[in-house]
Amino acid sequence: MSEKTIPYKIYLEESEMPKAWYNVRADMKNKPAPLLNPATHEPLTAEELSHVFCEELVAQELDNDNAYIDIPEEIRNFYKMYRPSPLVRAYCLEEKLQTPAKIYYKFEGNNTSGSHKLNSAIAQAYYAKKQGLKGVTTETGAGQWGTALSMACSYLDLDCKVYMVKVSYEQKPFRREVMRTYGASVVPSPSDTTEVGRKILAEHPGTGGSLGCAISEAVEVAGRDPSYRYVLGSVLNQVLLHQSVIGLETKIAMDKYGIKPDVIIGCAGGGSNLGGLISPFMGEKLRGEADYQFIAIEPASCPSFTRGTFAYDFCDTGKICPLAKMYTLGSDFMPSPNHAGGLRFHGMSSTLSQLYHDGLMEARSVEQTSVFEAAEQFARVEGILPAPESSHAIRAAIDEALKCKETGEEKTILFGLTGTGYFDMVAYEKFHDGEMSDDIPTDEVIAESIAKLPKI
Amino acid sequence: MSEKTIPYKIYLEESEMPKAWYNVRADMKNKPAPLLNPATHEPLTAEELSHVFCEELVAQELDNDNAYIDIPEEIRNFYKMYRPSPLVRAYCLEEKLQTPAKIYYKFEGNNTSGSHKLNSAIAQAYYAKKQGLKGVTTETGAGQWGTALSMACSYLDLDCKVYMVKVSYEQKPFRREVMRTYGASVVPSPSDTTEVGRKILAEHPGTGGSLGCAISEAVEVAGRDPSYRYVLGSVLNQVLLHQSVIGLETKIAMDKYGIKPDVIIGCAGGGSNLGGLISPFMGEKLRGEADYQFIAIEPASCPSFTRGTFAYDFCDTGKICPLAKMYTLGSDFMPSPNHAGGLRFHGMSSTLSQLYHDGLMEARSVEQTSVFEAAEQFARVEGILPAPESSHAIRAAIDEALKCKETGEEKTILFGLTGTGYFDMVAYEKFHDGEMSDDIPTDEVIAESIAKLPKI
Repeated sequence: MSEKTIPYKIYLEESEMPKAWYNVRADMKNKPAPLLNPATHEPLTAEELSHVFCEELVAQELDNDNAYIDIPEEIRNFYKMYRPSPLVRAYCLEEKLQTPAKIYYKFEGNNTSGSHKLNSAIAQAYYAKKQGLKGVTTETGAGQWGTALSMACSYLDLDCKVYMVKVSYEQKPFRREVMRTYGASVVPSPSDTTEVGRKILAEHPGTGGSLGCAISEAVEVAGRDPSYRYVLGSVLNQVLLHQSVIGLETKIAMDKYGIKPDVIIGCAGGGSNLGGLISPFMGEKLRGEADYQFIAIEPASCPSFTRGTFAYDFCDTGKICPLAKMYTLGSDFMPSPNHAGGLRFHGMSSTLSQLYHDGLMEARSVEQTSVFEAAEQFARVEGILPAPESSHAIRAAIDEALKCKETGEEKTILFGLTGTGYFDMVAYEKFHDGEMSDDIPTDEVIAESIAKLPKI
Repeated sequence: MSEKTIPYKIYLEESEMPKAWYNVRADMKNKPAPLLNPATHEPLTAEELSHVFCEELVAQELDNDNAYIDIPEEIRNFYKMYRPSPLVRAYCLEEKLQTPAKIYYKFEGNNTSGSHKLNSAIAQAYYAKKQGLKGVTTETGAGQWGTALSMACSYLDLDCKVYMVKVSYEQKPFRREVMRTYGASVVPSPSDTTEVGRKILAEHPGTGGSLGCAISEAVEVAGRDPSYRYVLGSVLNQVLLHQSVIGLETKIAMDKYGIKPDVIIGCAGGGSNLGGLISPFMGEKLRGEADYQFIAIEPASCPSFTRGTFAYDFCDTGKICPLAKMYTLGSDFMPSPNHAGGLRFHGMSSTLSQLYHDGLMEARSVEQTSVFEAAEQFARVEGILPAPESSHAIRAAIDEALKCKETGEEKTILFGLTGTGYFDMVAYEKFHDGEMSDDIPTDEVIAESIAKLPKI
C-alpha cells in the first residue's frame, strides 16, 4: 500500500476490535515459573489463590495453555467507551528528526485514567462483580492504576478502596480527587487501618511509604472480608492477558495497512504495557512465523531487567504476598525519591522475565533527564504531552530513528505511548528549572538489596 | 439506519474531513454589527484592524459574504494530528437516565490543550507565520486558550507571549508549566511589563487580575512591535469561523448515519465553541432547509445572554480594544471569584448575539453546584472527566433527556463536550467537600455595571 494512504491516525471499526485476549504463555516453550506460597515455598494452588483473587482471574493467572480467552461482551462494551485507541503515524516527529525511519505509536492515553491501565481494571472489576463481591482493594503509586480501577468500579457499582503511597497522596492531590470523583475511598499508605501499616509506621515514623507497603495493606484489608478481593494493576499473568488488547488492536491495524514493524519498544515497570503491546507479535516470533526486535525500556534509577537478578522474590514489603520468579532488585530496593512517575517497582512480570531470560527480547535503561528531553521534543511536534513513563519509550524510539538517520535504514519503529502527563507537571517543572537529577543506584546498593532475597 | 449500527464513537475518515470552514454570517439576514474604533466610534477599517490582527484574519473578520473559506493545507495537516474528534453516542448515560432520548456529544478534549481552542489557535498562528511575523501575544484565563496557542506556536516556531490572569497563574501552576513545555513565556497579569498593567497595579495593588485586564496588556505589547500581532481565543467572527470545523465534522458524521438532532446545546462564554458547533446547522435554519432548537448555556454567575443587554461595549478593562455590539454585563462586571473555570467573560460573540437577538436561538443559565453534579454523573458513566465549562452543556443535556423521560419523547440531543477537567481538580475538590457556592450576581450589581456602558 502506498505511503500516502496511511492516515495519521488509524482507528479500527468497532467490528474489527478483538473479541478475545491473547495469552502468550500458550506459545512459550519455557513457561513462566509459578507463584509460590510465601510460607511453604510450594506452588500456589487455585484454591489458595482464590482467597486473594476472583475465581475467573485465578483461572486466567494459572492458564498456560489456552492461546485465546474470550473477552466477555460487557467488557467489550466498556472498551467501546474509550477504545479502539489510535495507532498514530508520527509523521511530524519523523520530519523533525529527518529520519528515513517510519515511526508509529499506539496511544493509550485518551481516557480519564490517562493510561492503558483501564484495560485490565475493567476486566478485574467485572469478574469481581460477576462473583457477587462487594468490592475490591488495591494500591496505587503514581495514580494511574488507582484512577482506572475507580472508574471501572464506579461503572459497575463496586466499592473501591485504594491505598495510595503517602508521598504520592500528598504530592498529587489531583489524582486523589479524580478517584474521589469516581467514588473511591483513598487512604494514604502506610496507614493505621492495617496491622502491616501500623508495624511499618512504628518502625519508620514519618515514612512516605512505598508501593510494596501499599500492596501489603491492600492485601491485608481484602483478606479480612470474604466479599472483597485484592486486585493488582501490573506484574501478574492475568494483567498481561488483559493488556494484550493493546497489541491485538495494533496488529489488526498494521495488518490492514500492510505495515510490519521491525522494532517494537515499550516502557517497563511491572511490564503490563510492554507485555500487552508485544504479546501477539511475540506469539508470531515464538511460533517461528515472523521475527521482530523487542526492546524493554526501564529507568536507570530502577533497572530490574538490566541490573537485577532472575530469582524468586517477594512482591510486597510486608512479605505477605505470593513469591514470584522474576528479574528483581530485591523487595527492599527503593528508587531515588527524585525519580518521577511510575516504573518504580522492584521486580518485573514473570512472563516477561522468562522471555527476557530466554533471549527473546532486549532491555535498556535510560536516564531521567534524557527521558524528559525526549518528552518535550515529542510534545512540541506531536501535540501530546506524554507521561514520564511513556517517555522512556519515546526516548528509545527517537534514538532508534536517529540511528536510522546515520545508517540510512528505513526501519519501521513501533512504540507504546501509554499515557498523558497532565498530573506530572511538577516533574516537568523540575526539568524546565534544571532541577532534575539522574539518580542511578550504585552497585553496592543493588547488591545489598539482592543479598536479602529469600533463599529458595 | 438501524439503531444498532451506530457505533459508540464515530470517527470520520481523513478523506471526509472538511476542507473549508463555514461562515454563518453569509447566511444571516441581519449581519453582526461591525467593530468600532474606541476613539471615534466609527466602524474599523481593514487598514486599522491590520495593526492589531494579521491581514488574512482581518479579511476573515470582516467577511460577511463568503459562506465557505478554504482551510489551508498546512492547517488541515495539523488538524490531522488531533482531529477528527469523535462524535460519541452516550449509550451509557442514556441507560443510566433511563431516557428515551438519544444523546450525542462531540468531544473536543482529546488534545493537550484539553479543549476545542486548538482549532483556532493553529489557524491564527499559521496566518501570523505566513505574514512573516516573529510572534503573537494573547491573554488566558482558565488556561486552555494559552495552552492551545503555545502548542500551535511551538509547532510553527513562532514566539508566544501569554498574559495569564494572576489568580489563575497562581492557582494553576500546572497549566503554566504545560505552556512552558511548549516554549511560551507566561506573565501573570496585571504585570509591570505594560503601561496599562502598571496603571491597574497602582489603582488596585494586590489585585488578582481579570481577563479584560490581561487582554489590554497583550494588546499593548503586540502594538509596540510591528513583527507581533495580538490574537484572541473567542468572541471574534474569525474565531467562530475556525471553530465551525466542530459543527462541520459533526454534521458530516450525523449525515453519514442518517441522524438528525432536534436540540443542539453548547456552553457559552465568549461563544467560540457554541458558535462553532451550531454554525452549519444554523446555516440550514437560516436558509429554511431544516429546523433545530439551539440552546446556549451560560453560568448563572456570569449571565451575559440571559441578564445582559444588547449594546456596544468594550472588550477589555483598559478600554483600548475595539468596541463590539454584543450581549454584555458591562466591561466592569466581574463574576464571583468562587466561579470555577472559564465562561467568565462579560460579553458574547457579536454573531451569536445577533442570532439570539433575532430569536434564532435560546439561552439558559445554570448554577455551579448543579453543573458539578452533572459533571460527576457524566464522568461515572461515560468515563470522561469533563471540564467545568463543558459541564454546563452536560447539565442542560441531562435536563432535556429527563424531560423526554417524562413526556416519552424520543428526541435526539446533541451537545458539545469542549474539554477535560484535569486541571480543574481544585474545583472538583471543593464540590466534593461541599464548599462550592452558587454566587449569582444581584440585579443591582448588574445594573450598576451596565450603567457604565459607553454611550453610542
